[in-house]
Amino acid sequence: MRTAFYISDGTAITSEVFGHALLSMFPMEFEHVTIPFVETEQHAKRVLKQIKGAFDESGERPLVFYTILNAEVARFIGSSVGINYNFLDQFVAPVEKVLGLPAKPQKHRTHSMHEQTYDIRIEAVNYALANDDGSNLKDYKEADIILVGVSRSGKTPTSLYLALQYGIKAANYPFTEEDMGDVLKLPPILKRYKDKLFGLTITADRLHAIRSERRPNSRYASKQQCRMELREVENVYRKEKIPFLSSTKFSVEEISAKILAETGLKRKKY
Amino acid sequence: MRTAFYISDGTAITSEVFGHALLSMFPMEFEHVTIPFVETEQHAKRVLKQIKGAFDESGERPLVFYTILNAEVARFIGSSVGINYNFLDQFVAPVEKVLGLPAKPQKHRTHSMHEQTYDIRIEAVNYALANDDGSNLKDYKEADIILVGVSRSGKTPTSLYLALQYGIKAANYPFTEEDMGDVLKLPPILKRYKDKLFGLTITADRLHAIRSERRPNSRYASKQQCRMELREVENVYRKEKIPFLSSTKFSVEEISAKILAETGLKRKKY
Repeated sequence: MRTAFYISDGTAITSEVFGHALLSMFPMEFEHVTIPFVETEQHAKRVLKQIKGAFDESGERPLVFYTILNAEVARFIGSSVGINYNFLDQFVAPVEKVLGLPAKPQKHRTHSMHEQTYDIRIEAVNYALANDDGSNLKDYKEADIILVGVSRSGKTPTSLYLALQYGIKAANYPFTEEDMGDVLKLPPILKRYKDKLFGLTITADRLHAIRSERRPNSRYASKQQCRMELREVENVYRKEKIPFLSSTKFSVEEISAKILAETGLKRKKY
Repeated sequence: MRTAFYISDGTAITSEVFGHALLSMFPMEFEHVTIPFVETEQHAKRVLKQIKGAFDESGERPLVFYTILNAEVARFIGSSVGINYNFLDQFVAPVEKVLGLPAKPQKHRTHSMHEQTYDIRIEAVNYALANDDGSNLKDYKEADIILVGVSRSGKTPTSLYLALQYGIKAANYPFTEEDMGDVLKLPPILKRYKDKLFGLTITADRLHAIRSERRPNSRYASKQQCRMELREVENVYRKEKIPFLSSTKFSVEEISAKILAETGLKRKKY
């Protein structure tokens, strides 16, 4: 199998994201290898050997996606036996021309610690944890958004992703049997923060499958129960005009991006 | 201020990551605007107006980073009054040549739901939550890694990031006063899983600052206490040969990348 290398003097996240996006257009499999923090010529030389090794093993020249600021180290990697893509490089000159400003690369700037936004993210993660699953209603006034939905509809991973990636304080509240009664009503605490609510839903089949892994053959996991709960919450979303989306076919990245796009919520970190 | 747009028919994460990495080389500020899920010509036309609006307001042509698979929609965005970078596009032809295979773009593949790896990530998030802060020692045999360290040294955000981004099951265990006694000893449960341990440490000043926000003027937050705890854990790391790093100057992305690089731990999701 052909190997794709993602190499950087930082986390290599930029190389990975770019390389994956490009390779995902091709209907074939790759062996992916990420090598972060390549900061010295000695390290670069070891990497060259690793690339050579992958070439020798598969007989196919590896693809090498890299971003490295140190010119000497970059030159080393660019001399590998692979097919080398220093993909940011070729955009630097045109952007310099547009901005009328020479580039001044600062080491590791993209995914490194920015004092201002870093604490915001950690605080948002702590907030999401403290306000997971309806555990802490008193902090709702601090929330940037409150995700609502039935148990296992994707609220917790989404709230953590919003916190980690964007520094957004997302609480989440699960509608429970107690809220349902005969007809599901919005609990008073949620009414008070109605403009912060965002609903998640999911298909009954998928919910049934997820809950069955957790508690096989329970009433909680039964299709009938799943269908009933989903019907109730979707009715409430419509009646109360709460924006909502179905998490069934979407990744946590997509759900988060859709929520930001729909609500206009501003991320604290870009 | 000049605006940078990140536009896609998917999440626009690829455009954001690429655009940020490029713009971070320039010592100036931008207004960042992400527009995901641009899938129709009507939507594209609205986006063109928004780009024009940003131009009219600032007098500076916006930078437009985009990846869009639908050729018609892409053409629209590429005709904006901004400076347009369809940055993946120019790599497609050379990679086709290398692979001897035409590109077959599939919509939204990069950050969308991949059945196989998606459940792994959600399961890893649930695992990290259930095994946060030493709350659930009995599941340690399932852990891919167990992060150890004093309270507030960065274990929880790191374990969540490892789960969400890589599908890695990361437990975390805080060393407490009880573990410390006269001299900190590794609790028996951790001894049993010693090959899974990874230590975090932090400077006493930073720890003091973080803890002071949480519990001002407490013994817990005092510099003396922070120094003592850190001395003890670092001694244990060295004595027991537990790999460790300092979280003081690193983002959660960097800490995670360093952990993967040092331990050789394989990500479940690329």
